[in-house]
Amino acid sequence: MSRFWSPVVSSLTPYVAGEQVVLPDLVKLNTNENPYGPSPQALAAIREAATDVLRLYPDPTALRLRTAIARSHGVEPDQVFVGNGSDEVLAHSFAALLKHDAPLLFPDVTYSFYPSWSRLYGITFREVPVDEGLQVRVADFRQPCGAIILPNPNAPTGSALPLQDIEALLHDHPDQPVVIDEAYVDFGGTSAVPLVARHPNLLVVQTFSKSRSLAGLRVGFAIGQRPLIEALERMRDSFNSYPLDRLAIAGAVAAWEDRGWFETQRDRVIASRERLAGALRALGFDVLPSAANFLFARHATISGEALAAGLRARSILVRRFARPPIQDHLRISIGTDAECDRLVAGLAELVDPPA
Amino acid sequence: MSRFWSPVVSSLTPYVAGEQVVLPDLVKLNTNENPYGPSPQALAAIREAATDVLRLYPDPTALRLRTAIARSHGVEPDQVFVGNGSDEVLAHSFAALLKHDAPLLFPDVTYSFYPSWSRLYGITFREVPVDEGLQVRVADFRQPCGAIILPNPNAPTGSALPLQDIEALLHDHPDQPVVIDEAYVDFGGTSAVPLVARHPNLLVVQTFSKSRSLAGLRVGFAIGQRPLIEALERMRDSFNSYPLDRLAIAGAVAAWEDRGWFETQRDRVIASRERLAGALRALGFDVLPSAANFLFARHATISGEALAAGLRARSILVRRFARPPIQDHLRISIGTDAECDRLVAGLAELVDPPA
Repeated sequence: MSRFWSPVVSSLTPYVAGEQVVLPDLVKLNTNENPYGPSPQALAAIREAATDVLRLYPDPTALRLRTAIARSHGVEPDQVFVGNGSDEVLAHSFAALLKHDAPLLFPDVTYSFYPSWSRLYGITFREVPVDEGLQVRVADFRQPCGAIILPNPNAPTGSALPLQDIEALLHDHPDQPVVIDEAYVDFGGTSAVPLVARHPNLLVVQTFSKSRSLAGLRVGFAIGQRPLIEALERMRDSFNSYPLDRLAIAGAVAAWEDRGWFETQRDRVIASRERLAGALRALGFDVLPSAANFLFARHATISGEALAAGLRARSILVRRFARPPIQDHLRISIGTDAECDRLVAGLAELVDPPA
Repeated sequence: MSRFWSPVVSSLTPYVAGEQVVLPDLVKLNTNENPYGPSPQALAAIREAATDVLRLYPDPTALRLRTAIARSHGVEPDQVFVGNGSDEVLAHSFAALLKHDAPLLFPDVTYSFYPSWSRLYGITFREVPVDEGLQVRVADFRQPCGAIILPNPNAPTGSALPLQDIEALLHDHPDQPVVIDEAYVDFGGTSAVPLVARHPNLLVVQTFSKSRSLAGLRVGFAIGQRPLIEALERMRDSFNSYPLDRLAIAGAVAAWEDRGWFETQRDRVIASRERLAGALRALGFDVLPSAANFLFARHATISGEALAAGLRARSILVRRFARPPIQDHLRISIGTDAECDRLVAGLAELVDPPA
């Protein structure tokens, strides 16, 4: 606390990201990064963009990137908004679209940044409980509200809703903005982008951090009808007109256009995920079916705290959320098969300790 | 307008940046970019950072960059906050430090983003008139207020205040946060960073966009005592935890450490500025003494509108603000000497048209 702080500062509950530590021999499965590098074409494009031209401001609207994204999603460039990671895009969405008199709804087990953004912007929110199986039920969102945000697949569970459920949600709430946060959609979910044409209240948010292996570059985007995108543009131009640097624009365009690389790495992650899920089940874990690049799993008898600590002692990081009803779950990012094997070996020791 | 917008969206008055246009043979003197490229070491560092490691999130606190900046400014790394351009740093400062019950004060002729940020965060502000010579008088800020922000050198005038004036301002307002926006300080101003140790209410903001020739990379920072920096950190972690991508961190560290390159290019810009000021005065312009990388000048008889349009017709862009009392001024970024010569030739035709 300080007398120089504005009133909002002390009321904030800042988001706590997974640790970014660098240790030799560390198996880092705690922040849902891709185990495989980005497209070599993206790396080449970045190197080519590292010239004297960096003395000039970037294109504030990143038209080249918006055009590339729009083309493959079958929308117009002016229906695409890009930002400094999907976190910035989501932050602007909270301020521009999700703040109304009636409460914002989101699941009680979901991306833990949503309450932080709500407090930042003074948004009243109501958390809608997931069911006993940690699944989102869209019928439970049938209640008066100002807006809705839902990740699909959900985090940290990895569970995906079918497109009919998203469509039902949109039909139930034609007068409320509905943001679908598709950070993990490429690993097995179904995107709601095709619904944008028919639903003026739908905004879909995606990121280059996960399936494009570019967490270190900070690029995210949103797709929606013009009035929603215009709201985000107004917010950007009242906050920071140049959110994407020249290197991020160049790298993201090249990564987006290298569809083959994207599909190959994505398929490898999915294959490793299913292999890891089997190995965890064999160790006595209850593993939620995942459409993401992570698994959410709980052991039948051993606490999440003990497992996370035991893994950490073996230089293996996973993510744990110390709050009910998920305090005993581990969220495990999908690594390479070698990393997954080390995780499984570590867990095997913890589950069945050597005599 | 859209029924999906939150109430704040329609109340915004988004900032309008200078045009970012790409045309052959364009002389672009409208957005205060550096005419010389960034340090070759920065470009090399960026190329080296373009590896598979981009799959991983960056260090959210950019410790390496904060340490480099802290060392040369004689402060601790935890007294440095970095962001996605100084615009993001300033935006967080508005929300975290400049919003209080009493109005925020800033000059009526100043960086035109200040009113936009104020409206974004619902900050009451009062514009303190500059004097007839467009100079800020700190004595005019001696009035009840919640906080103060002042660019030094000021934009778009380029006029610098001596450090004693900043110190007087801090003494007059010991209980109010005072942000000094030093985007242009390296071109002739005196930094207030040495005052930070004695003034818990002082935050100094600088950027890599101008004197480090890295407008295209988006890196800015703030220096202050811990409570002020902590307020910005809380804001960051409630908005976007990873504001700087890995390439920006790598490039900024290398640019910062290449002091020789920085000094050489800065001196060239200063020399060109003084040469251009002389040429403009010879054409009948009233040119404000500038401590920045631009000049603010008005012709004795020809309107700013006519001059800007005439230059544009010659593929020369300068910036003009169509509002009193500066509607007849041109803000001219310092280009290479060749670019300045083309500007002077163009203005000569407009001032003294060929028969």
